[in-house]
Amino acid sequence: MKDFTEQLIEKKTILEGKVLTVRVDRVCLVNGKEATREVVVHPGAVAVVPVLEDGSVLMVRQYRYPIGKMLLEIPAGKLEPGEDPEECAGRELEEETGYIAGRLKKLGSIYTAPGFSNEILHIYLAEELKSSKQKLDEDEFLTVEKYTLAEVKTMLTDNTIEDAKSIAGLLLAGLK
Amino acid sequence: MKDFTEQLIEKKTILEGKVLTVRVDRVCLVNGKEATREVVVHPGAVAVVPVLEDGSVLMVRQYRYPIGKMLLEIPAGKLEPGEDPEECAGRELEEETGYIAGRLKKLGSIYTAPGFSNEILHIYLAEELKSSKQKLDEDEFLTVEKYTLAEVKTMLTDNTIEDAKSIAGLLLAGLK
Repeated sequence: MKDFTEQLIEKKTILEGKVLTVRVDRVCLVNGKEATREVVVHPGAVAVVPVLEDGSVLMVRQYRYPIGKMLLEIPAGKLEPGEDPEECAGRELEEETGYIAGRLKKLGSIYTAPGFSNEILHIYLAEELKSSKQKLDEDEFLTVEKYTLAEVKTMLTDNTIEDAKSIAGLLLAGLK
Repeated sequence: MKDFTEQLIEKKTILEGKVLTVRVDRVCLVNGKEATREVVVHPGAVAVVPVLEDGSVLMVRQYRYPIGKMLLEIPAGKLEPGEDPEECAGRELEEETGYIAGRLKKLGSIYTAPGFSNEILHIYLAEELKSSKQKLDEDEFLTVEKYTLAEVKTMLTDNTIEDAKSIAGLLLAGLK
């Protein structure tokens, strides 16, 4: 495999935010030329495909400020520093949907936007769900919705589901 | 459907880069409280699932600086200002792989990272491919690789393909 690694020349941090760190780095390309790279450093995240005993899937609908609209997604959340992804998956599932997973199975890890961000998202299938209590953060607003497999397939085919991690997660769950 | 729209109070631009604009906005939540939102504004992009007559799929392997490694992806690229997504899909396919699409079919549009970015990515299936000439930018380095459908399925199942848009695009192509 050819290696096109770019060598760091100089890092410049533009923002150290609550969630994101943004840098503009100067790098050296394989042809010896210089280029700049705008990079969004992200703490990483998890997403969960929660499947009930009857085969139906739990999803959440929430407002996404960057795109300015409500979006239907599988439950997901950012990793806390040092947090184990599987624990995070169980925690986010319970907080957002009020269900506890009896079994979590890793479906894969994906880079959501590798052109400009290092965000890695670990996806889990959650089964043997037991109803508990939703524990949303004080400033978190979402509704939980339940869809049959047929409804999910239709919503994937007709692009009703527009969220990349949800499409990847739901289809990977079907593939495995 | 409940509406959890967040109202903009104040915009603050932190970076106006070559590709990305980064803002930290103050917003008003539905409970009346204030919050900050770190937003990465992106020009939008396209990705293409190029399928040859024998059913095999063309992919590209390139270095992704934000994640610090080579990544296997479907061909993709950013929209130029005012560019039609379908034209962009044809252009990027030809530039990166050297193939011209006889037919482009829209598979859907997806938000890659709606938690922090407005990036929208339009995905196309490209068929009736004719071999032409690769036209990489001077500072673009990638290799073109061809995989059978069986190989693609294995690489999806075992997480060899780690790129979200590629997973979504390849699986949507199979679904439709």
